[in-house]
This record gives sequence, C-alpha cells and structure tokens, in this order.
Amino acid sequence: MDFSINNSASNTLFQKIEQVRRRQGKVQDTHITLAHGSGGKAMRDLIDDIFVSNFDNPILSQLEDQASFNLSNLLQQGDRLAFSTDSYVVDPLFFPGGDIGELAVNGTVNDLAVSGAKPLYLTCSVILEEGLAVETLRRVAKSMKAAANKAGVQIVTGDTKVVHRGAADKLFINTAGIGVIPSGISISTQNIQPGDVVILNGELGNHGAAILVARGELALETDIQSDCQPLHNLIETILKACPKVHAMRDATRGGLATVLNEFALSSNVGIRLEEESIPVREEVKGICEILGLDPLYLANEGKLVVVVAKENADTVLSVMKSHPTGKDACIIGEVISSPPGIVLLKTVFESERIVDMLVGEQLPRIC
Amino acid sequence: MDFSINNSASNTLFQKIEQVRRRQGKVQDTHITLAHGSGGKAMRDLIDDIFVSNFDNPILSQLEDQASFNLSNLLQQGDRLAFSTDSYVVDPLFFPGGDIGELAVNGTVNDLAVSGAKPLYLTCSVILEEGLAVETLRRVAKSMKAAANKAGVQIVTGDTKVVHRGAADKLFINTAGIGVIPSGISISTQNIQPGDVVILNGELGNHGAAILVARGELALETDIQSDCQPLHNLIETILKACPKVHAMRDATRGGLATVLNEFALSSNVGIRLEEESIPVREEVKGICEILGLDPLYLANEGKLVVVVAKENADTVLSVMKSHPTGKDACIIGEVISSPPGIVLLKTVFESERIVDMLVGEQLPRIC
Repeated sequence: MDFSINNSASNTLFQKIEQVRRRQGKVQDTHITLAHGSGGKAMRDLIDDIFVSNFDNPILSQLEDQASFNLSNLLQQGDRLAFSTDSYVVDPLFFPGGDIGELAVNGTVNDLAVSGAKPLYLTCSVILEEGLAVETLRRVAKSMKAAANKAGVQIVTGDTKVVHRGAADKLFINTAGIGVIPSGISISTQNIQPGDVVILNGELGNHGAAILVARGELALETDIQSDCQPLHNLIETILKACPKVHAMRDATRGGLATVLNEFALSSNVGIRLEEESIPVREEVKGICEILGLDPLYLANEGKLVVVVAKENADTVLSVMKSHPTGKDACIIGEVISSPPGIVLLKTVFESERIVDMLVGEQLPRIC
Repeated sequence: MDFSINNSASNTLFQKIEQVRRRQGKVQDTHITLAHGSGGKAMRDLIDDIFVSNFDNPILSQLEDQASFNLSNLLQQGDRLAFSTDSYVVDPLFFPGGDIGELAVNGTVNDLAVSGAKPLYLTCSVILEEGLAVETLRRVAKSMKAAANKAGVQIVTGDTKVVHRGAADKLFINTAGIGVIPSGISISTQNIQPGDVVILNGELGNHGAAILVARGELALETDIQSDCQPLHNLIETILKACPKVHAMRDATRGGLATVLNEFALSSNVGIRLEEESIPVREEVKGICEILGLDPLYLANEGKLVVVVAKENADTVLSVMKSHPTGKDACIIGEVISSPPGIVLLKTVFESERIVDMLVGEQLPRIC
C-alpha cells in the first residue's frame, strides 16, 4: 500500500506540502479574507488559532462536525434537557461593561438558566465581514472564553462564515446552548397566579444606556456600564431556597415591560407594578428623558424577573439580596386576576397607566 | 385585587388595547422594519405569523426562551447526544434545487447524521436586513418546514434579529441541532485504518455549479440542480447493515478534497483516489474547465463520504445503491499507510498528484 515516489520533482513538492502541514496552524493575515470562510486551509488555521486555542477543551479540539456527550451523565444532573439559541448583532462590538463575545455567552447561558437549567455546553457560530481585523476576532474569542469560564460552560462546536465587505457589519455571533433542568423544577410563563409577587434583581436599563453612550450619539460622559452578566448562579441559589418559583425570565430586548406583558398574556393574569419601587439609576433616567425613552423598555443583559407565590417572596428576596448578582433585589409588583393580559403601573403620582408591549423600535442592534 | 376603571376615557383605551391583543398576530407590513427585531409587538407578530404558524409544533408554540425535552425519552433512542451548528449565508437565497431554508435544515441534519445520530430537534435563528420582503421570509420558513418534515426533525426554538439596511445582505440563518447516537456506533475521523475503502454516494459539485449558474455569472443555460438533501435516512440504512463504519462526513464547503484531507490528517493515514471512478456530470466538468475550478473542491449539500473496512465495502455499497439517496454510490479510493496526512489522486492518465486542502477561496457564500 505504500506510496513510492518516482521522481525528485514530486519528491520536492511532497516535502514542501508536508512542511506547510506540520507547521502549527497560525493565521498569517491581519484581516479576514474570503479564504477564511472557504472550508480550506485558511479556515482551518483560523479555527485552530482563534477558536480551538482560546476555547480550549477536548470536545472542540476533536473538530468533528458535531460534539457528543454521554446521556447518562446528563441524566445524573436532572431529568430534562433545555435547548436555546440567540444571534448577537450588537453595535458597537465593544462597550462599557462588555462586548459582543461576553454578551453571546451570557445571553444564551441566561436563556437556559431561567428554565432552572444548569447551562452546560454552547456552540459558537460567527459570520465575519471580509476586512475585519483578526485581532478584533481574537479579542472577542478571549472574551467568550472568559465568560464561558465564569458561567461554567464549555464551547464545544462552531462554524465560521465570511461574507464580502458590505454584506455584513463586522461580526455577528450565534450561540446555541444546552443545559439540564433538575427534577422537580417547573418554571413557565404559564404558571403565574393572582396573588404572586414580582421580584427584580436590580437597576433597569444600564445595558441600553451603555450602548447608547458607546455609540456616541449623545454628547454625554457617564460611567454607566452594561449589566452584562450570567444569572445561572443567582438562579441556582434562588431555586435551592425555593424550588417552587412560578416564572422567571431575564429582561433583555424590549425590557421589563415586554417580559411582564408576555407573563400576563401567557398566564392570562394582570400585573400591577409600583413605579417607585423599580430601581433605575439617575443617569439612566436622565438619558431616557433627553431621548424620550422609557426605562421599562430599555434592554438589560443581567436582569432577572422572578414571580413567586406571596408566601415565598420573603425567602426569595432574602437569598437574592445575599447574592452578589441580586444584592439590589426588590419587590416591584404583584399579580392580579383582572384585567387579564394587561400590565399596569402605579405611578409615583398615584395614578395608574397601562404598560403595553413595545410598539415600534427603541434601539436597534442592542444585543 | 381587581382593577376598577375609574373613568370612561381609560375604559375606552383599555378596550382598544384589548382588541389589538386578542387579534391573531399577523404581520401588517410588506417589508421587514427595525421594529421586527425590537423584542416588542411587531416581533411577536412576525414570530407568530411566520415561524410559529409554519413550524407548527407544541414545543415552539409555548414561546419560552428555551425548548425542553425529557432526557429519559432521549436515552431510549441511544446513549449519546450529538450537538451541532452552522450559519447559512448562501447567495442567492433561492437557487435550482433548493433555497437557504432547505439548506439550513439539511446542513445541520447532515452534520448530526454523519455521527450516526438520529437528528431530532433544530433551532432557527435569523438575521434580517431591514427592507427584506416579508413574503421572502415566509417562503423560506415554509421551505424550512418542508425540509424539517422530510428529515423527521422539529424546529423548537429560535431568535429574530433585524439590522439596518446595508448591515447584512437580506437574510442569514443559523440552525443548531441535537440528535441521539445509538449505542454501539462509533464514527470518527480518527478511526480510519490503512486498507479501508472510501465510498461516495453520487455526483460531485452539483451544488456549487447550481449556485454559480444561479448567480448569472456564467452565460450558461443548464439544468444542473443543487443536490441539497438530507442524508440521515441513507446513513441509518448503512449503519443497520454495517454498524462498524469507521468514518463518515458530508462533503460540503471545500468539497470532497477537504473532507479527505481532514480524514488523512486526523487518522494519520494516506488516501489514494481513482479519478476515473469519481462521478462528475459533464456540465459540471464543463463549468469547471471554463472557470479553472476543480470538482474535487466544489461544494455539495447531499454527498456522503463513507470509510469502511475492506471486508464491509461490498455490503455498504450494495445497501447504498438500493437507497434513493445512494443509488449512484461507488468506491472512489482506498486508505494507505503512507504518505500519512496526504491525499493522492491517480489521474485518468495513470499519473499521481497530491490533492491538497483548498488554499484560497473558490466560491464565497456557497452555503
């Protein structure tokens, strides 16, 4: 079966190719070219150099077309698999308090965690614009790895596509994630009952405001940082203290108002908020006033809305406050039987108004 | 707890909002606007009208931030979970033999299936350019549903982002998928042994050629169609007849040459192909000659490369030939011990040349 080389010309060619192959795969270019999306040598080097070396885990480094896991091991951690995905198109890529990479990990980690799942494995699929600086991609990959470490997840498989200059804006990331939901946990937007209490883990709108400021559209100097953070550990702590949480969601795009409207519609209940109990930073209020925005609709990337039976509210509030990600937790409203499907806000002036779902668009490309 | 309305003005407002809410969510716009990515009402209507109504399954229609499945049910189908993802940026969106939606389903189904997994559930995450016709998105969603039905998978969760006009080219789709690998199956690019036989299920390069023709870059009239198709059923048939398949992969971007180079590198073996046994349509050969392309590197979307021990080759070839997706199956080469990591081609002129990994880029946005 051996291959015998018959002449010195092919022998030389052969040695040359061997040399190229054996060289550690390193990206030679400073900027992304279409070849990095070809499926060939340049793509393989990009994947090795940027993703495999940074994400660094044995499942990914096998570079099969799919990652695989033992189901019995998963079953030891719970009885249901949770599966979620989000694409991230945030502009700018880097902003105070985070970047697109950190967002792409935390966003999907949080979408899993709000079901009560322990997040375990993520995918990472990137769409790159020709001309993107390789250094930018490297920085984002390092940020994803740091966020994955913090959230206790592994990035196990992925994909790389490159489009012509002008066919995408710099870099889009998709992550999909799987996690395991422990037995006995049943969290759903359909579980909410009149009498329940609505708890929030802290200030609203910091992510939205940080992005606005980072875009330079406001001649403002502030120290507002995105609240981009993983919520899985706070959620685990809450569920240990109170496994019977009714509903839970992170308030991202569309803000608190959108989450609560979805709750109200899914469970066919009303929700009444107390405006004065909803924490919003003065700077965020200021930005909202200047731009005619409402903090209830501003995006967040580390804010948890928890709905629990009234008798469990004190317990949940107390464990949240003792956790770093929940130290500013507070009760912001209550669930009422009527009007079903409607969210009301009792304003600081003691009047009541309807908080509808977001109509139109506040801030495109916020996440 | 009931909400009592104190004056007729708010009563009227209230009824109005109720009416809007109760109306079946239908997209009112003919084109995608930034509001469709807001997280608010317009996005909810888009999701209901385009995705939930077309994909039509009880897991998706709950609209939680994550889908969930009973792990015991999965464990009844095998002992390992497979997890994969790909983003799709093909241009044009519609081409002879398929479209981006069908590709997005079949591509991820095939990436799961080549591990031996039974594909079960997919995600669907779209990035839309402002101004995209809603009708285009609807057509793509219908196509995804048809492909999902054909492949026996359900699309269970997703995400919608919208970017400004010019920040993306029309429509990108990411799918992630999970499947279950039956016990006793162990397929890996690292399993290949000298003496093994390489089998291919049919003609090379039809997808790449169909895209080229669809782009109108060639003044050619041909009836070449993309080979876009799911391979899970063919693979299931092969594994029933021969569970000990060594390696399997679908030859997509980078073509057959790239897959075989990855095989050779991963298993540290050589592979020798017989050029005259590799099926390529005359029209595809013609296009390649005109453009200076090599069919070995052209993209496919329904071509399976199977590596099996020599003693199993006849069995596998025979079951493949009896399956509609494998009727043109043939042995195209053999695995040799040396030179390791190298793919050789014995040409029709009886000379031998090295088939390297793709260097540079043949056809951007092919998938």
